Amino acid sequence: KNRGRLLISCLDQPGIISKISKFLFSHGANIIESNQYSINPHGGDFFIRIDFEAPDLIDKKETLMEDFQPIAETFSMTWELHLVSELKRMAIFASKDLNCLRELLWQWQNGDLMAEIPLVVSNHETARPLVEQLGIPFYYLPASKENRTEVEKKQLQLMSEYDIDVIVLARYMQILTPHFVASHPMKIINIHHSFLPAFVGARPYERAYQRGVKLIGATSHYVTNDLDEGPIIEQDTVRVDHRFDVDELKKMGGNIERNVLARAVKWHLQDRIIVHGNKTIVF
Amino acid sequence: KNRGRLLISCLDQPGIISKISKFLFSHGANIIESNQYSINPHGGDFFIRIDFEAPDLIDKKETLMEDFQPIAETFSMTWELHLVSELKRMAIFASKDLNCLRELLWQWQNGDLMAEIPLVVSNHETARPLVEQLGIPFYYLPASKENRTEVEKKQLQLMSEYDIDVIVLARYMQILTPHFVASHPMKIINIHHSFLPAFVGARPYERAYQRGVKLIGATSHYVTNDLDEGPIIEQDTVRVDHRFDVDELKKMGGNIERNVLARAVKWHLQDRIIVHGNKTIVF
Amino acid sequence: KNRGRLLISCLDQPGIISKISKFLFSHGANIIESNQYSINPHGGDFFIRIDFEAPDLIDKKETLMEDFQPIAETFSMTWELHLVSELKRMAIFASKDLNCLRELLWQWQNGDLMAEIPLVVSNHETARPLVEQLGIPFYYLPASKENRTEVEKKQLQLMSEYDIDVIVLARYMQILTPHFVASHPMKIINIHHSFLPAFVGARPYERAYQRGVKLIGATSHYVTNDLDEGPIIEQDTVRVDHRFDVDELKKMGGNIERNVLARAVKWHLQDRIIVHGNKTIVF
Amino acid sequence: KNRGRLLISCLDQPGIISKISKFLFSHGANIIESNQYSINPHGGDFFIRIDFEAPDLIDKKETLMEDFQPIAETFSMTWELHLVSELKRMAIFASKDLNCLRELLWQWQNGDLMAEIPLVVSNHETARPLVEQLGIPFYYLPASKENRTEVEKKQLQLMSEYDIDVIVLARYMQILTPHFVASHPMKIINIHHSFLPAFVGARPYERAYQRGVKLIGATSHYVTNDLDEGPIIEQDTVRVDHRFDVDELKKMGGNIERNVLARAVKWHLQDRIIVHGNKTIVF
Repeated sequence: KNRGRLLISCLDQPGIISKISKFLFSHGANIIESNQYSINPHGGDFFIRIDFEAPDLIDKKETLMEDFQPIAETFSMTWELHLVSELKRMAIFASKDLNCLRELLWQWQNGDLMAEIPLVVSNHETARPLVEQLGIPFYYLPASKENRTEVEKKQLQLMSEYDIDVIVLARYMQILTPHFVASHPMKIINIHHSFLPAFVGARPYERAYQRGVKLIGATSHYVTNDLDEGPIIEQDTVRVDHRFDVDELKKMGGNIERNVLARAVKWHLQDRIIVHGNKTIVF
Repeated sequence: KNRGRLLISCLDQPGIISKISKFLFSHGANIIESNQYSINPHGGDFFIRIDFEAPDLIDKKETLMEDFQPIAETFSMTWELHLVSELKRMAIFASKDLNCLRELLWQWQNGDLMAEIPLVVSNHETARPLVEQLGIPFYYLPASKENRTEVEKKQLQLMSEYDIDVIVLARYMQILTPHFVASHPMKIINIHHSFLPAFVGARPYERAYQRGVKLIGATSHYVTNDLDEGPIIEQDTVRVDHRFDVDELKKMGGNIERNVLARAVKWHLQDRIIVHGNKTIVF
Repeated sequence: KNRGRLLISCLDQPGIISKISKFLFSHGANIIESNQYSINPHGGDFFIRIDFEAPDLIDKKETLMEDFQPIAETFSMTWELHLVSELKRMAIFASKDLNCLRELLWQWQNGDLMAEIPLVVSNHETARPLVEQLGIPFYYLPASKENRTEVEKKQLQLMSEYDIDVIVLARYMQILTPHFVASHPMKIINIHHSFLPAFVGARPYERAYQRGVKLIGATSHYVTNDLDEGPIIEQDTVRVDHRFDVDELKKMGGNIERNVLARAVKWHLQDRIIVHGNKTIVF
Repeated sequence: KNRGRLLISCLDQPGIISKISKFLFSHGANIIESNQYSINPHGGDFFIRIDFEAPDLIDKKETLMEDFQPIAETFSMTWELHLVSELKRMAIFASKDLNCLRELLWQWQNGDLMAEIPLVVSNHETARPLVEQLGIPFYYLPASKENRTEVEKKQLQLMSEYDIDVIVLARYMQILTPHFVASHPMKIINIHHSFLPAFVGARPYERAYQRGVKLIGATSHYVTNDLDEGPIIEQDTVRVDHRFDVDELKKMGGNIERNVLARAVKWHLQDRIIVHGNKTIVF
């Protein structure tokens, strides 16, 4: 397709949209959907996502980017241009609980997640049949606190070899080192099995059970070096009652986890998310 | 405040946003939030809502409108310019069930509904104390099938006298004639006590009870001459179970009704809604 | 396990619970969870579900049933006794859309649906690999309006051969004849892809799109001879907006469909449902 | 009415329900709704709520209680018998934000909260007109950290004088001393303006804004000496997005707060809640 997406953030000032839209028009692009938001019109931050169509976009991409550079510099923009036809390359990291992995692969098969999945990495063999049956390479790299540095070296090598754009932690359950995180800033998406900031850290369902909450939730966020503190992309909750024990909370929660993660991944793949400080703008 | 809102719909073609944003920039306006959407970029419909700020907007309004006219003509636009400082004048029509009326008045007192309420009209005296205690004129006009034409004549006279922009039917329970509806096209907001198109017409809670539904709902829509068939603005549902009898369904539903109506009215007052055929775009 | 479930409905009168609980106690049963509800204590209907545990329940089942018979007769009860250890035998009927089938098989693999699945029947070959890979026999019986009677004969033969207790129509898309329905009264569970009674019949997503609804839904119900009119077991809705075209409504709805159907099937398998007229009591 | 409610908790063992139901039957009571739940049938805890009807219940209450005493002792039960005709006496504590107070008074006027409201206490004069217009005595007792002991003395005197059964903190914003809490154990209901345990303590909306959550919530719980740590009765959440500033989060949250508090209060008034450790069973 000839569709592209422009994501921009900068300090707000008059005339930005006028400049951008004139630029797109003069390059033959027609805007299909655009969403813009400013935190504070007087010197606050400005964010825009533009979904557009232009003939021969693939050939024109380089020219467009060169021509946009001066505008970007004028307004000190942070910006990205993505082509819908250039699928993102997504690695999935999994562990023993296949709930989230399965949902992602399923939606991917259905054509709901527009990405390439060049590999799945896991510290357990559990997912191998599920993954290989779809023709996706599966890498078993047993990870633990002890061998973390060594394993991450191999993982980073794989990410580089397969030219990975985005890493999804589908209940991977291992903590990543700052070195790993720094290698893919705001490109690693995690699912935490609680409604953050409630129950940060380990065993959230057990703690939810102890606390006697009436709703349980899940949170998908970008990974930073602060555990469970990265920018939140999506959250959801579901009603439970006194009859649910920890196992039933987990089952109920698993359903929320996979839906929340799949939505967050889809929005990332559709270039709907702009990270701003420790928050996300989701257009 | 110096804030304005521009609502535009027209056939899509390249260059519209460029033209609009250049126009606003050249008139000193800074765009705070804008949302645009096209149904089909190749000859489909184009919709945009722009929330902007411009110095001395009140004085400039006439000039802005004159200067925009040629652009509007070029693209055959349907368009509106609203100033946040010019509050809409809202009439509320009520009956005996005060649930929705009370919610609207409450949110209005809280400053959540930015409008003037010059009068409340009712075919019962029930609401008088509630309305008059807030200093709002209350008109008791007993309406029935028999005297409909006569009563509507008085109502239309009141709407004209008080210069009313929008009419909210807060469970008014009387059918309006085509003549009345035509006098305020897409300016009359109704709340129907079901999840439309389920249970069109009378006694929806009784019929929901008979059908044994597991959720009940409410729908707010613009009034047209087809009963309960106008463009839907907002809907919501809530879970019920076998223990709810008709009275309890009504109580539960009443809570949804007032929230759905209040949201629809708020969006209308914030100029968030563009009607397109029998549907609404809510930005 | 030694767990059993007693489902009873009859006309309400004093002393029923006393009789039942004395009976269970005298047979060594300990009640784990019980839920009772009467529509009207003065001659209305009485419903109860009792989840209990008794040593050697499997051996005692016959005795229990014989001993309960006189009590059941005294109160003219409609009643069922189910043992958790006796898994229900569930047939799934599918077509080309595998969304619901896949969810059921997945939850079944996870141990969330306690049943045996002796076969899957479909009028297309699409599901064969998915089904056979789990070791479940797959029957391809191409069905259409023309050969309905003939195909149903084969299907009924299969149901009988495999001793089927419950039939789940996982988007089967074919209408069943009264003869077939009568053979499994209140044992056939369907999923309809709308929030009933809105959009009864064909193409509900297309009609939801035309109507411009702000929520779409799904409904699971027992099949009767009135199309989409059987007792509703479960419903749910999800928010959509003007940006969703028919395909996106279908994708969004598909997620609701599979969750609603899976919950309805789970409740049926857990003997949580009592049908009363055209409604369900779900304990 | 001749309706009563029996709430019982004790260690589980066989025969409890049989004993209770025989007792009720022999006293001419007909059970309308009963819900029972055991955490673990082998020596775990047993909970039951029975809603029943008996002729001349008001006259019989003393006899019933005396006759039930031996059964209660046999099973070491904690139990309560409430008559629907004996309305609970509810005091409301408010402050400057009238959102929750108004909802409670409104639902009370509608007949949705079956209680007497003998007084409203506040540390501000704001609520006086609203309260007095309904004929409810209003007590202005300015409270602060400095005069807490003194003020609580007066408050406790009022509670005693008016014979108060339940105290609702409708955004009262003052911390109660252990002495006050101990005087009404599990009879003080609070609303916290966050989804606990997220954002315990002060300024939850500001912190929710900082954290960038995608849902905000509210929690109603019984007050204990651990701030925001008492048994949770009810919680709910609502979706927000990046466009909401702190004020808009507060407005959105206010709507959830009042609904969550009203539900919790209603369930308490309907004797639906059994406190078990730091959790609630809500039947």
